[in-house]
Amino acid sequence: MKMTVLLEGGILSIPGRAKASFSTIVLLEAGDRKILLEPGDYVTHSILENKLKELGIKTEEVTDILLTHFHLDHVYNSIFFPQATVHISENYLKKNYEKFGMIIGKQYKLIMDSWKEVKVFKDGDVLFNKIKVYHTPWHSKEHSSFVIETENMGRVFFPGDIVMTRVEFYDIMRMLRDDECARFVREIVNNSDYLVFTHDGVLKLDKWR
Amino acid sequence: MKMTVLLEGGILSIPGRAKASFSTIVLLEAGDRKILLEPGDYVTHSILENKLKELGIKTEEVTDILLTHFHLDHVYNSIFFPQATVHISENYLKKNYEKFGMIIGKQYKLIMDSWKEVKVFKDGDVLFNKIKVYHTPWHSKEHSSFVIETENMGRVFFPGDIVMTRVEFYDIMRMLRDDECARFVREIVNNSDYLVFTHDGVLKLDKWR
Amino acid sequence: MKMTVLLEGGILSIPGRAKASFSTIVLLEAGDRKILLEPGDYVTHSILENKLKELGIKTEEVTDILLTHFHLDHVYNSIFFPQATVHISENYLKKNYEKFGMIIGKQYKLIMDSWKEVKVFKDGDVLFNKIKVYHTPWHSKEHSSFVIETENMGRVFFPGDIVMTRVEFYDIMRMLRDDECARFVREIVNNSDYLVFTHDGVLKLDKWR
Amino acid sequence: MKMTVLLEGGILSIPGRAKASFSTIVLLEAGDRKILLEPGDYVTHSILENKLKELGIKTEEVTDILLTHFHLDHVYNSIFFPQATVHISENYLKKNYEKFGMIIGKQYKLIMDSWKEVKVFKDGDVLFNKIKVYHTPWHSKEHSSFVIETENMGRVFFPGDIVMTRVEFYDIMRMLRDDECARFVREIVNNSDYLVFTHDGVLKLDKWR
Repeated sequence: MKMTVLLEGGILSIPGRAKASFSTIVLLEAGDRKILLEPGDYVTHSILENKLKELGIKTEEVTDILLTHFHLDHVYNSIFFPQATVHISENYLKKNYEKFGMIIGKQYKLIMDSWKEVKVFKDGDVLFNKIKVYHTPWHSKEHSSFVIETENMGRVFFPGDIVMTRVEFYDIMRMLRDDECARFVREIVNNSDYLVFTHDGVLKLDKWR
Repeated sequence: MKMTVLLEGGILSIPGRAKASFSTIVLLEAGDRKILLEPGDYVTHSILENKLKELGIKTEEVTDILLTHFHLDHVYNSIFFPQATVHISENYLKKNYEKFGMIIGKQYKLIMDSWKEVKVFKDGDVLFNKIKVYHTPWHSKEHSSFVIETENMGRVFFPGDIVMTRVEFYDIMRMLRDDECARFVREIVNNSDYLVFTHDGVLKLDKWR
Repeated sequence: MKMTVLLEGGILSIPGRAKASFSTIVLLEAGDRKILLEPGDYVTHSILENKLKELGIKTEEVTDILLTHFHLDHVYNSIFFPQATVHISENYLKKNYEKFGMIIGKQYKLIMDSWKEVKVFKDGDVLFNKIKVYHTPWHSKEHSSFVIETENMGRVFFPGDIVMTRVEFYDIMRMLRDDECARFVREIVNNSDYLVFTHDGVLKLDKWR
Repeated sequence: MKMTVLLEGGILSIPGRAKASFSTIVLLEAGDRKILLEPGDYVTHSILENKLKELGIKTEEVTDILLTHFHLDHVYNSIFFPQATVHISENYLKKNYEKFGMIIGKQYKLIMDSWKEVKVFKDGDVLFNKIKVYHTPWHSKEHSSFVIETENMGRVFFPGDIVMTRVEFYDIMRMLRDDECARFVREIVNNSDYLVFTHDGVLKLDKWR
């Protein structure tokens, strides 16, 4: 399984004015599968378009979309991939998205309605023979983290939003936090080669193991 | 016609990383019409939701959407208003949006497909008895600017993206520019009370007339 | 003691491109003291200038600057207040700021060199008779949080960066986290009227007590 | 003369909340000169630090700083280079920076006071034997644009803020504007290999000549 980081995420949040945080977008390729590990947010759709063009990949050729959780900044761009199967934790069905409001609720519905097929996973599953699933419900109920065996970057930890940035990561590694989430992160880091943040750059873990 | 500025626009543009500029959102009310003068971009949809809730307005109650031009940062949120008639320059039909790319083109199509009804206007038209239309094709072919007679803010100039910010406005008013667009702006300013920028705050024009 | 929130903070972080997060700026007035509870970051200096002008306050009239911790996005604007005494945790002196790098280290030094006078405080101190200090070292060693008795907003919790945003706050209040920091936040919330976030809007706490 | 683009600029402008636009940073090397063609803004100082470290360049080794005009988002980082001579249009002296306000005026003064030496240039000058100066006063009175003969990128047009982004550039090239500034840009483009925007990515000009 080959990993290509198409775009490194960031945070743009101006309360009362604009919410434009955007998540990291990763392409995983194995055999005939082209998997988007989080397709990312609307504000990056034109950049995603350019990256795919550079790689010669058409939107119809993306076979799978893999999600850590169902927040818009990670999921929006899923609407552009008509042939993709969406993989997400079984717990995502337990939320009543319409309750989110007449606009936000409709936005969630439009995205779900665009999905051709959904396959749910649960804690402990191994996806595509290479991706281990961990249920990590400290950011949202359905949140999952992944550990991915890659041929080009070794073992990669993709925690999702339970640790979004380097600053949060350092807090955890310097033992400023000792909650369940922090202990989980430290344990996985100890056996991984890279950490790919959802809202920050990629981190080589050799100094942290 | 009563004008309420729901949100002042801004610019968030990080080349190769995120395009998140967002346009100003204005509500116009007259008789039984509730008109969104530009519904604005995705990154502001949750703020738009909150503003409408505060005013007790449901998405179904918005009767009309009025657009300066068809760029995503001005138009995206139109998908949330199922009963609204969209008003836009006749020239918007001349563009082939599919050519914009497999992702961006599809985004434009999804928005157009969501529209219940479209009414086109042209230079010189007067809309809702209070809004004078000027064809101002210096930002895009279909671009139009509006002069609106309001009961609470006097005569309001809504130029659209031909002058997005105060900095651009000052360049024009200090005569640093003397193109057709600059001359148009100076002429309208001379007879207006307020200028509502699409990507900046509201400006009282008393010092500039 | 009267509290005026001059500007609500936000987060603008684009890894490898720009770091522009900005902290909330609060004015506290009591007797002859004009205290800036965090003067905020460079990217807000022109907005701070406008707010002070509106209130008729000159930079020389600010008597005190109160800091949760010594990170640039909270502290930069301290350089503009020549008569202010800076109040900060005693632990800030334990860091070697020059080690931060030839540019960042110099930036920190320029700020410290601009300070006329520094008064250190420690856990349990009460400042200006109204502000209780809590040493909260979960974001940085010198980090402190404040609880402020105000005449216009009741008891206000100013946690600083141990809980920057509503999203982090909700995680704590929904018991998704149970570390020492989370327990501290829940305890203080229980006796406060408002929470003023450093990187988000103001929150009334009536629903959370 | 070798050109290295250290960072591509962007625009972050949220009226009333944060001004964080940041300009492109370019390194020019020729013989024993290390020239920063615009050192850029505060929000990029830590990224500039990393880039210089990667290249093994110390802040003391930068010999010259070259400016298109004196706005903070282009100039702030000049304070970190103690040995550099600052090159700027003679017209910059005609402005009274203190009038900009008690905070902004002081910010400008702090920067000017940090400069070891200033050398002014004027329209038509050739700097370092390779950089042709054009006085282009359409963004600010002292504004200048540069055409640079490089060994690795051919002839490079560095317009400064008279054309900040691709969108503005396209408007000019599609003849939507025909003011003096637009005509100047079209003329220089016709004889250049690259255009380096101040608030956008680098553009190869082969399609535009």
